[in-house]
Amino acid sequence: MTSIGIIGTGKMGSGLGRVWAAAGHQVFFGSRDADKAKALAAEVGAGLQGGTFEQAAEFGDIVLLCVPGFTAEETAQELANVVRGKALIDLTNVMSQTGFGLFVGTTTSMAEIIAHHTGAKVVKAFNTIHVLNLANPVIDGLRADVYYCGDDDTAKSLTKQLIIDAGFEPVDCGPLQAARYLEPLAGLWIHLAFGMGGKRETAFKLLGR
Amino acid sequence: MTSIGIIGTGKMGSGLGRVWAAAGHQVFFGSRDADKAKALAAEVGAGLQGGTFEQAAEFGDIVLLCVPGFTAEETAQELANVVRGKALIDLTNVMSQTGFGLFVGTTTSMAEIIAHHTGAKVVKAFNTIHVLNLANPVIDGLRADVYYCGDDDTAKSLTKQLIIDAGFEPVDCGPLQAARYLEPLAGLWIHLAFGMGGKRETAFKLLGR
Repeated sequence: MTSIGIIGTGKMGSGLGRVWAAAGHQVFFGSRDADKAKALAAEVGAGLQGGTFEQAAEFGDIVLLCVPGFTAEETAQELANVVRGKALIDLTNVMSQTGFGLFVGTTTSMAEIIAHHTGAKVVKAFNTIHVLNLANPVIDGLRADVYYCGDDDTAKSLTKQLIIDAGFEPVDCGPLQAARYLEPLAGLWIHLAFGMGGKRETAFKLLGR
Repeated sequence: MTSIGIIGTGKMGSGLGRVWAAAGHQVFFGSRDADKAKALAAEVGAGLQGGTFEQAAEFGDIVLLCVPGFTAEETAQELANVVRGKALIDLTNVMSQTGFGLFVGTTTSMAEIIAHHTGAKVVKAFNTIHVLNLANPVIDGLRADVYYCGDDDTAKSLTKQLIIDAGFEPVDCGPLQAARYLEPLAGLWIHLAFGMGGKRETAFKLLGR
């Protein structure tokens, strides 16, 4: 049984708190509005507690930071003295609040650089799978995804057909700027396969319902 | 039938060329070493051609750029006059040649910023799934992945157990710097679900064999 302090009582924070309480952990919900956190704790029951961010952070042997991404840095600074040295799970997302993109980290992509230099109708695709998968794009009984993005519909249609012809599942990821997501996705796969010694014949699949 | 010019005859370029030729497309392999490309084309047969980068780019109604990532920008500049206005698939990866990380785009992550400010043992996790999945982490018959990374083994072990307790499949992504991959991965999912109106109850699964 672990003591978990949850910083932020939005959907993910309250949802994970319920799940972990059901699994037998001690959960303390923290909110900027302590009364809101107390009400949530009372509603969930199971002896859960609620209070301020600081109280939740003090309570937890592990702290879950699940505030909106654009407030994450500020909240981290506020709670620094309480969480220093503690285990802390960060699930924040750094999506821009206005429009497309991340506000930390990814500010361009090789695909955009290539489009800029050439004026070609660039589509990013096929960067997220290992070459071994070309021999058999079906893994674990599922057709591996090839994520693709670009700004020209004709070029994208051509690419989609070439993805299908290679036996993969095409997943349209919208404009070329989405290469800022697809290039790190390739980074993750390469890191897992080569940096961490994992399986090499791997590919991502977007599950959905 | 599409005319495809392939820029780069490494494993991905030659592999996709073979696959697309088998699907009935016209393929022209291009290499800095034109003889190498011609030999590859002769080996594959099916009337395929080989030659220089420029010849391959001229041949294709669509061009596949599959040179090493660290030469992609330079190659794009060299071929600009040939590929301008053409459809071009970019599958290059922007992984650093020495050590961990991307050399374009992602230079930090919120998880690292939080660790810097707080000194907490930060683990990035749970950012790549929608809250709806908490009610049922099994999608399409598969247990959805929760990717996690961090620099402290104890904090990671705690987090791994909390992932399991929530019903997900934990995927260890190594050091906290891997948040530079996981934060854009969340960006991709959010972009697909909200920006592009896709399914919301989605999650990624790393297939492998």
